[in-house]
Amino acid sequence: MIDYQSVLNAINEAASKEKERGKIADYIPELAKVDVNNFGIHLIDNHQNNFFAGDSNELFSIQSISKVLTLSMALGLIGEDVWKRVDVEPSGDPFNHLSLLELENGIPRNPLINPGAIVIADILVSQLKNPKEDFLSFVRQIANDDTIDYDETVALSEKKTGFRNFAAANLLKSYKNLNNDVDAVLDFYFHQCSLSMNCEQLTHAFYMFMNHGKCRKNKAYLTLSQVKRINAIMLTCGFYDEAGEFAFEVGLPGKSGVGGGIVALLPNKFCVATWSPGLNPKGNSKLGMLALEKLTTETELSIF
Amino acid sequence: MIDYQSVLNAINEAASKEKERGKIADYIPELAKVDVNNFGIHLIDNHQNNFFAGDSNELFSIQSISKVLTLSMALGLIGEDVWKRVDVEPSGDPFNHLSLLELENGIPRNPLINPGAIVIADILVSQLKNPKEDFLSFVRQIANDDTIDYDETVALSEKKTGFRNFAAANLLKSYKNLNNDVDAVLDFYFHQCSLSMNCEQLTHAFYMFMNHGKCRKNKAYLTLSQVKRINAIMLTCGFYDEAGEFAFEVGLPGKSGVGGGIVALLPNKFCVATWSPGLNPKGNSKLGMLALEKLTTETELSIF
Amino acid sequence: MIDYQSVLNAINEAASKEKERGKIADYIPELAKVDVNNFGIHLIDNHQNNFFAGDSNELFSIQSISKVLTLSMALGLIGEDVWKRVDVEPSGDPFNHLSLLELENGIPRNPLINPGAIVIADILVSQLKNPKEDFLSFVRQIANDDTIDYDETVALSEKKTGFRNFAAANLLKSYKNLNNDVDAVLDFYFHQCSLSMNCEQLTHAFYMFMNHGKCRKNKAYLTLSQVKRINAIMLTCGFYDEAGEFAFEVGLPGKSGVGGGIVALLPNKFCVATWSPGLNPKGNSKLGMLALEKLTTETELSIF
Amino acid sequence: MIDYQSVLNAINEAASKEKERGKIADYIPELAKVDVNNFGIHLIDNHQNNFFAGDSNELFSIQSISKVLTLSMALGLIGEDVWKRVDVEPSGDPFNHLSLLELENGIPRNPLINPGAIVIADILVSQLKNPKEDFLSFVRQIANDDTIDYDETVALSEKKTGFRNFAAANLLKSYKNLNNDVDAVLDFYFHQCSLSMNCEQLTHAFYMFMNHGKCRKNKAYLTLSQVKRINAIMLTCGFYDEAGEFAFEVGLPGKSGVGGGIVALLPNKFCVATWSPGLNPKGNSKLGMLALEKLTTETELSIF
Repeated sequence: MIDYQSVLNAINEAASKEKERGKIADYIPELAKVDVNNFGIHLIDNHQNNFFAGDSNELFSIQSISKVLTLSMALGLIGEDVWKRVDVEPSGDPFNHLSLLELENGIPRNPLINPGAIVIADILVSQLKNPKEDFLSFVRQIANDDTIDYDETVALSEKKTGFRNFAAANLLKSYKNLNNDVDAVLDFYFHQCSLSMNCEQLTHAFYMFMNHGKCRKNKAYLTLSQVKRINAIMLTCGFYDEAGEFAFEVGLPGKSGVGGGIVALLPNKFCVATWSPGLNPKGNSKLGMLALEKLTTETELSIF
Repeated sequence: MIDYQSVLNAINEAASKEKERGKIADYIPELAKVDVNNFGIHLIDNHQNNFFAGDSNELFSIQSISKVLTLSMALGLIGEDVWKRVDVEPSGDPFNHLSLLELENGIPRNPLINPGAIVIADILVSQLKNPKEDFLSFVRQIANDDTIDYDETVALSEKKTGFRNFAAANLLKSYKNLNNDVDAVLDFYFHQCSLSMNCEQLTHAFYMFMNHGKCRKNKAYLTLSQVKRINAIMLTCGFYDEAGEFAFEVGLPGKSGVGGGIVALLPNKFCVATWSPGLNPKGNSKLGMLALEKLTTETELSIF
Repeated sequence: MIDYQSVLNAINEAASKEKERGKIADYIPELAKVDVNNFGIHLIDNHQNNFFAGDSNELFSIQSISKVLTLSMALGLIGEDVWKRVDVEPSGDPFNHLSLLELENGIPRNPLINPGAIVIADILVSQLKNPKEDFLSFVRQIANDDTIDYDETVALSEKKTGFRNFAAANLLKSYKNLNNDVDAVLDFYFHQCSLSMNCEQLTHAFYMFMNHGKCRKNKAYLTLSQVKRINAIMLTCGFYDEAGEFAFEVGLPGKSGVGGGIVALLPNKFCVATWSPGLNPKGNSKLGMLALEKLTTETELSIF
Repeated sequence: MIDYQSVLNAINEAASKEKERGKIADYIPELAKVDVNNFGIHLIDNHQNNFFAGDSNELFSIQSISKVLTLSMALGLIGEDVWKRVDVEPSGDPFNHLSLLELENGIPRNPLINPGAIVIADILVSQLKNPKEDFLSFVRQIANDDTIDYDETVALSEKKTGFRNFAAANLLKSYKNLNNDVDAVLDFYFHQCSLSMNCEQLTHAFYMFMNHGKCRKNKAYLTLSQVKRINAIMLTCGFYDEAGEFAFEVGLPGKSGVGGGIVALLPNKFCVATWSPGLNPKGNSKLGMLALEKLTTETELSIF
């Protein structure tokens, strides 16, 4: 029996002493305001025991972590048809997502890079009556928490400065891989990224990915097969061009966001979320990466 | 003394018999309506003698040919500062203008590829009080022809379908190489491309490039040095990824447009324009390319 | 308790009926001679029970599967210094391994693409007294099988036609990421690829990757941490540009070779090898991929 | 009547005062030994008057300038068949010649980048009885100078360190665009690059490119059409990724080499060669570029 709480305490203590905390994302002005000294971690095990330390109850912008949730909802709605419009291969490339899109005729490499997530957003905009409201309901349900909400200020901030996403959406449109208006799709996309959650809520929302597709209330949102596949995509594509490094150093499926959050999980064992807003040069939370490395090293638990 | 009229007649006759006339551009719906059987050619020599054959008085959409005119106006307005925002190297690449833009941090390769021309459009939108009106006046002046006008239907058609240009403009914006709003710059850009001119008008507008920067009325719009540089850029970059081929086969500075027009010139000798809407696989007018090859082969005139 | 034998029998039967068996690699002339109708599978579980079906005792050329074995030996010899010369990120790219090498200044993306494996070969040539003999001894030891040997005809065949590998090695040399002579390194490399093994032997050699680094005789060749990392690299990089697809469809760390072999494993549970020489368009054994998909679907076992 | 001698004197004087003289190529060890203070210039006009200043009689390694001479000889031997194996488009790219080769299936962009010149070398090795001797004879004939010779030390130095060229040749071989052995072709290639000539000899060898294909003795080696095409290729491709810049600033067809030489010409007017071993960041002679800019600015002569 692993004493998760001790491990979390040790991680939190180490984090509090860390001088080099990375650099806060400043390309979304609203995100740049966060205090770099925050660090939180929350873990829920397969018996729904909760363990936590640090600022695990502070809300932050989940950003790209939301891509796993929209993908899950899209798979629930249209099933394997998703894969006609987006591939499942790692991109491995730091800088040229648009280049890849050109080379590959408008089929994004995977649903966790921006162009791929924009295609998924397009699917949801087509499928849902009230896209933003319906997706928010879905997140609240799987997390069993009605307080989760968008941060309109963040969504607006990104809308005003997200030129690269506008470029990606227009390029997708030129390849006929976007059915709705660019503005409508990106309005949804910027909202999904602006979801404000804390570490505890993230582990609750992602509980189903370690629990055969069933949430904490035992309701099934995904089939076992779908869960396995999403976990596989998280492992191979969840950390930008550091996915290989994360698999290598941590060995868990997971997803990071530029807001400094990371969520990861070991099937049948636990789901964990960390938050520390300082990023490493590849755009992943610096202390979050270290914390998860420490967690799998100490516990000797990983999928490998 | 060369008998240009005979050469033009022979070219026109050969063109009329050509069965393989290329494919009309269909990505701008409005352009797709043109009859593929059109062919016209007009040449003005350094004594302002005019020679012509075929449909040389039919109006067509000059499209990318306008990029030379906006570049000229921008050079007149802000001089060499233009080169801080756009380079002068051939792109040599058929497919990945956006990739190059990513690789090269938002500095377009040259002002005759779309991203480069969009930067030039941005300069004009910044510099001119009434950008569209003022640019139209400039074109009318250098051509000495007040009937030249935009084709609003074409401009609108491209606005509705020009997703790739929206992608490029947004990408430039993300690299801070676009000062005005994307929509304002592209509205100007789609209008410049929609300019409706015939072969005669084109040779009149481009007369200054073979005449030391002076138009037919002897008014100087560019310095000799500026003219030489623009001619150099036309030679190395004027024909998409077929620039080397055109230099190799024809040997004149020139510029083509997807409307099927080509304008080319031999400094101190002549300026010539052709129009035939069918394009070769690289996007240049099929019969226009053949016509100009024939012209320089028959006359043994070229810059080389 | 899973009845592996029944699953293997079903897989073998399905394979025998398959009409579309893929295309045999023909770029190494010697490999092109194999009969496309071969299919074999062998599985060893964590209690060292062996299960098999079809042509599981036929020898074939393991080709790229050898890259995992050289990497293991190199890690044993110089430890983490390996990672100074090769990265751990998936390449995700079908066609441009040399391009990536140019973009990334001579540091291969990972040790399982050719340029990366050539760097590992260079390390072994530097470290070993008799590189080819010593590496062969290593493979025989971990597999506990002294009959394993190189196929000199295959090695020679590849030497005569492996221009792309000569290109990669010279490019590495130009970036000073190859310490020995190109010819010496490639002679070793072509030999490692020419190793001739059957499905049973492959599972025995790879037993340690599912058994915490210990071979069937319980001797430790790698630390648990090293094993986990190699497994992570196999998962993210083991199947050329189909790694994401394999993680997605099969969900096991593994490695394929153009000889038609695939080896894969579930930590603490089993190691499995398949062989069928017909390849899919991405260069992985067509029937082997299907067999492993069926295995994890039927048994509901995967790392995810 | 232009006073070329005065212009050359002024250029030479300016060069002698220049502090920033660029960086000598050090990747070929033998070239690194040259004194950076050398500067020479020689011009021959269409009446065969010779003008010169500075170190115009010092021998240096012509390197890539030789590519124009091998291309000329190959065109003379097999005519337009050359273009089946190499294209005529500018590459525009500083760093990824091998990448382009991969993207474009083994057809080099043009005959003046290394992979293209290696294909031309392969043609000569196939066509000539004694390739090195026969090519040397050709150069001596067109220059009317029997003292011209290879520098065996330079050829050997490049052979030992030219890994990138070995990479290119092997990659070409993998695409079946190299008929002879890599070693034989590169032995020829390294010799052609090692040709040792001075500024005067270069202008004499290139005299035919400004004189309709006829050398100073009035013997025709190329047709007018071939000369024009080679001039076009020099203009669009002669200066690595600075070809556009050279066309823009100087406006003459020409070719540079990493030994610090540049040769350029104005059809029917003059041929000029400069030498200064310090290179600018793009690999062209720093003072040579400035000298030619000055020459065309002062004389107001250029093809544009």
